[in-house]
Amino acid sequence: MDDPRRRSGARAASSTTTTATKMMAVMMKIMMMMMMMMVVAHPAATSAGAQDAAMEELATEKEAEESHRQDSVNLLTFMLLLTLTILTIWLFKHRTVRFLHETGLAMIYGLLVGVILRYGIPATSYHNRSPPSCSLATGPTSSLVLNVSGRLLEFTLKGQIDSADIHNVEQNDMLRKVTFDPEVFFNILLPPIIFHAGYSLKKKLFFRNLGSILTYAFLGTAVSCFVIGNLMYGVVKVMQVLGQLSDKFYYTDCLFFGAIISATDPVTVLAIFNELHADGDLYALLFGESVMNDAVAIVLSSSILAYQPRGANTHTFDAAAFFKSVGVFLGIFSGSFMMGAATGVVTALVTKFTKLHCFPLLETALFFLMSWSTFLLAEACGFTGVVAVLFCGITQAHYTFNNLSPDSTRRTKQLFELLHFLAENFIFSYMGLALFTFQKHVFSPLFIAGASVAIFIGRALNIYPLSFLLNLGRRHKISGNLQHMMMFAGLRGAMAFALAIRDTATYARQMIFTTTLLIVFFTVWVFGGGTTPMLSWLHIRVGVDSQEEQQTSADTFHVLQEDGSESKSKQESAWLFRMWYSFDHNYLKPMLTHSGPPLTSTLPAYCAPLASCLTATRSSENHEQPRDPDCDLIRNDGDLTFTFGDTAIATNGVSGDGGAGWSSNGRGSSSTSEEALQRDLDSRELSRGTRLVFPIQDLT
Amino acid sequence: MDDPRRRSGARAASSTTTTATKMMAVMMKIMMMMMMMMVVAHPAATSAGAQDAAMEELATEKEAEESHRQDSVNLLTFMLLLTLTILTIWLFKHRTVRFLHETGLAMIYGLLVGVILRYGIPATSYHNRSPPSCSLATGPTSSLVLNVSGRLLEFTLKGQIDSADIHNVEQNDMLRKVTFDPEVFFNILLPPIIFHAGYSLKKKLFFRNLGSILTYAFLGTAVSCFVIGNLMYGVVKVMQVLGQLSDKFYYTDCLFFGAIISATDPVTVLAIFNELHADGDLYALLFGESVMNDAVAIVLSSSILAYQPRGANTHTFDAAAFFKSVGVFLGIFSGSFMMGAATGVVTALVTKFTKLHCFPLLETALFFLMSWSTFLLAEACGFTGVVAVLFCGITQAHYTFNNLSPDSTRRTKQLFELLHFLAENFIFSYMGLALFTFQKHVFSPLFIAGASVAIFIGRALNIYPLSFLLNLGRRHKISGNLQHMMMFAGLRGAMAFALAIRDTATYARQMIFTTTLLIVFFTVWVFGGGTTPMLSWLHIRVGVDSQEEQQTSADTFHVLQEDGSESKSKQESAWLFRMWYSFDHNYLKPMLTHSGPPLTSTLPAYCAPLASCLTATRSSENHEQPRDPDCDLIRNDGDLTFTFGDTAIATNGVSGDGGAGWSSNGRGSSSTSEEALQRDLDSRELSRGTRLVFPIQDLT
Repeated sequence: MDDPRRRSGARAASSTTTTATKMMAVMMKIMMMMMMMMVVAHPAATSAGAQDAAMEELATEKEAEESHRQDSVNLLTFMLLLTLTILTIWLFKHRTVRFLHETGLAMIYGLLVGVILRYGIPATSYHNRSPPSCSLATGPTSSLVLNVSGRLLEFTLKGQIDSADIHNVEQNDMLRKVTFDPEVFFNILLPPIIFHAGYSLKKKLFFRNLGSILTYAFLGTAVSCFVIGNLMYGVVKVMQVLGQLSDKFYYTDCLFFGAIISATDPVTVLAIFNELHADGDLYALLFGESVMNDAVAIVLSSSILAYQPRGANTHTFDAAAFFKSVGVFLGIFSGSFMMGAATGVVTALVTKFTKLHCFPLLETALFFLMSWSTFLLAEACGFTGVVAVLFCGITQAHYTFNNLSPDSTRRTKQLFELLHFLAENFIFSYMGLALFTFQKHVFSPLFIAGASVAIFIGRALNIYPLSFLLNLGRRHKISGNLQHMMMFAGLRGAMAFALAIRDTATYARQMIFTTTLLIVFFTVWVFGGGTTPMLSWLHIRVGVDSQEEQQTSADTFHVLQEDGSESKSKQESAWLFRMWYSFDHNYLKPMLTHSGPPLTSTLPAYCAPLASCLTATRSSENHEQPRDPDCDLIRNDGDLTFTFGDTAIATNGVSGDGGAGWSSNGRGSSSTSEEALQRDLDSRELSRGTRLVFPIQDLT
Repeated sequence: MDDPRRRSGARAASSTTTTATKMMAVMMKIMMMMMMMMVVAHPAATSAGAQDAAMEELATEKEAEESHRQDSVNLLTFMLLLTLTILTIWLFKHRTVRFLHETGLAMIYGLLVGVILRYGIPATSYHNRSPPSCSLATGPTSSLVLNVSGRLLEFTLKGQIDSADIHNVEQNDMLRKVTFDPEVFFNILLPPIIFHAGYSLKKKLFFRNLGSILTYAFLGTAVSCFVIGNLMYGVVKVMQVLGQLSDKFYYTDCLFFGAIISATDPVTVLAIFNELHADGDLYALLFGESVMNDAVAIVLSSSILAYQPRGANTHTFDAAAFFKSVGVFLGIFSGSFMMGAATGVVTALVTKFTKLHCFPLLETALFFLMSWSTFLLAEACGFTGVVAVLFCGITQAHYTFNNLSPDSTRRTKQLFELLHFLAENFIFSYMGLALFTFQKHVFSPLFIAGASVAIFIGRALNIYPLSFLLNLGRRHKISGNLQHMMMFAGLRGAMAFALAIRDTATYARQMIFTTTLLIVFFTVWVFGGGTTPMLSWLHIRVGVDSQEEQQTSADTFHVLQEDGSESKSKQESAWLFRMWYSFDHNYLKPMLTHSGPPLTSTLPAYCAPLASCLTATRSSENHEQPRDPDCDLIRNDGDLTFTFGDTAIATNGVSGDGGAGWSSNGRGSSSTSEEALQRDLDSRELSRGTRLVFPIQDLT
């Protein structure tokens, strides 16, 4: 921020910009050329290697070396793609271009490289030989030792292929090599993205809207899944009648498509919201929903797979299988949730009771390892790692984050921010590439058109009815325009893609994959690009954050008073949150972090020994600091952060025990039953040397 | 630093420490138990999976799932090992235990888990079936499509195995699964370690000792390699006579062993140096040597492999093959160097001419991607990625680092610090594990004893004669005690291990691997643990850094004057460095960064258009800041950082153009030819609006 170089640069901004832009253009051209050269060098290396290998009798070493080199070239292609994306993003940010997000850009670059790989290069290693036949007595294991011309070679199983594909496989050797193992997305790229999402969720606004978010995520995703699934089944039936289906397409396949396409990913929209500081509630609703419904979609798709009886007739409804599916859903979801929460809690305890915070490197390393362990632990136990990682992220942000040293909080935040950024852009550029290099596309215009309509209807039946129901309970209604915006922001992204590419063995799955890919492209480019016009068309407030921060202390005070008089219907939606908040504040926070009231005062008397054991020295000395660290929201650069109680503290000029000062002011204005409850809670809290301020007050 | 919680904690330190330690002990026990349980759960999962698989006819999916679960458990074992290591390190640092470094600790934990895996678990999946035999018409390719019982399965080549090993392979299924692909070390774990080393090298003391470091690294490693190789050949001959060899062991194998075991890794020693702030020159010499000789050892070992004529008689000296080897050495080394330097320079240019520094995330991502690209590019071109990464790191630190925003400098430093930490401890705990889980150990007491003596002699013939030669030219001699310390600090570590595990196909290589592993254990534990006593025994200064920083300005001034009168023999060792420095300062720095004199003044007149094109606005406005950013050393927490010219500036009270003030003072004291040169240079520089201060002045 206070970089003298930047300031001096700003002085001559106009001239620099043109020079820099020219330079950039030149560099980007050079990079493009490099990439083209590399891409063209691609098959040359392969074919040369293949010829050499054919010449030597058994050049396994050379073969392995060649394969490693090929892998390096492939990865390098993606590195350069990402570099190019970063440079272009910079240019866009520099010129405040908002119609194309970095992920959209990454897709475009991926697409270009995909086109070059697909059409720019003649097919090289064309073998028309049939595969060697071998009969194995026992069933195949994942590894296989073969006696090949007298030498023992060990092979690992890669997968099963269709007999129809053999020639394709042999033909497009190079294209296949660009294709990563789909499990890479689930095991390497998605976890940091999802963890980062969870780790960024520590926002008052998220918890304030928790009920609505969970409703959208669970109920909404289920509605969307079944609506889309049934509509698509209709489409499939029509296709069958028209003779456009060349293989089987079951009802469960349709439901599966409904599940994976229900995972929304409004990353593009949220980035613009961030930049424009759009309405905070909308941001929290959209972000929270997208994060949670990813988890729901993953588990839902697994349960649908569990429903599918193998080889049997899947058209009839099987109650047992259905309940098994529901059981699988609940089991996987709760198991993953517990795993994630458990490792988060363990990390919180470790960071609380050790003095690791004196060594930020060790602390960060521990944090990273524990978070990764969550994923591995869940996968090892048969749960879903990605879901576990999400809840681990939320727990880490809520508890562990408060125990970390200031240096580590910065380090962990920046580390996962970087990993998230790289992984996300990698996935999106891979998507672009996959459109042309993926070998088993099944384009079906009717299915694609049907799917587009179905996801629109599915999203509408998710948002509008649920919003209506939620508005019955919400004090701060979700306005019609916000609902339209949520409808509009139903983009599909990385999660839908990763779920679709995971299994592309059957005809139905291949059609699903192709359709998903195209829907992602369409929504990211069209809806992502249209966010800014849409925001202004729907009259959604922008620049809220800066307004809030500029509010004078008198304003804040006024708002709080106003709030007190309006809080009639508050309790309906908030009582669950309120109970959780007070439990969290009184027991969990003091146990897991150094904040909140000491356990010795919140726990009943007979728990005293336990309480004093769980109270670290740091925490018991914290009496003089009644500030709840929960108010220290993780401040992402442009994120919406509201400070509630603390602003009020400053207003009243009571620095030592601000919460009390605030509540006494708030109390004077009106006296509903709600207020009475709050007063009661407040005074109870005050007697224990700390305060409990509910952050439900609305500033608008 | 200014964390209030820490301060309050310090008040009650004594009581907290005991509580925390108790808690820690409990937690560590719990973790240990968890790990034990997991380790025991290990084969259970495998056997259950194997039985299921045998029951179903073709359960490839289940098999793949099981394999994934197994992988998760394996990785999780390492995660928990690392977590345990971190917690124990914290305890050690907390109690200032110095006899055991974290890497030594990681090895011990790895060893324990290895013992449990090896002896604590009965062998489970025992199959005595012979492998299916298959004759392939064409040579084997890296992937293979097999027609297994009517279904087409695709396999990828894993490697070749000895026929004698089949039963072993089948027996110890589980142990084999814990063993990673050796290429993981080279392609994933070593690059961040080596890059971090290069990125931390931006130290005045390193460049001051560049000549000595390069001598030790190139000449010293070559001497050590050939001495050890020849001695070991003698040992092998003796073993042959005694009948202790059961297979072939060529001269080139001995040389190969000499090369890999010559890569020193004094990470343990340097950590203690850092903590105790030991002598700066010694630190620079040791660190620089270990970093550079890793590169030399890699390339040397590849060239020795290139010498080996396959299948032919390798006992006779083949001049053509020898020169080919030398050519390979020079080719790979210079190629890798160029690749590394080139990507570093490209990154510097990109960060200079774009305003990426306004977006630290983008900048850090770009930095990371470009640095990784170096590795991939070098590997794709057939050079050595690890070596390229080292030189990329050095270039990035020297140029790009100056262009980054303050935020990005911190981010990149911390990112690579973390990656380095994790990778290093992973390798060391893997080493511990490998001692018991690796399947092909060949323990030969005679060979191990011979190797221990040989590496001692090799190190001695590296350090003492070269130090003698270097001292002829050095003004600031390397004292006898420093030489003894360098001799003592010849630990072997990650690089030797990674090189040894890369190829364990033959009998000789297996013996080499086992011996290397034991030598690493021995040196890390014994020499690493003995560093502190050795330092005091050799009377090597500790606490230098804090002394330097406490020096009053008058002292510094005095030293500088004294230095002027002593600078007689300075030029011998320094002229190369001096030439490089002036070229770097006048042309490279201004071209690649925003520092140094503007190119418009250093380049000849006819290059003016080029110069003005390469001078970004930021740089041309920098006239009023003559401070060379090179003086802003990368400050690792405990690293030795000396400030030379800048201290003097403060002394003289000349703030605007300190260099001139300093040189005029220094000039008054004496007037050797050296001084005349410097005065000349200074005045030339002064006329161009900046100064050029050589950082060769010695403070001691």
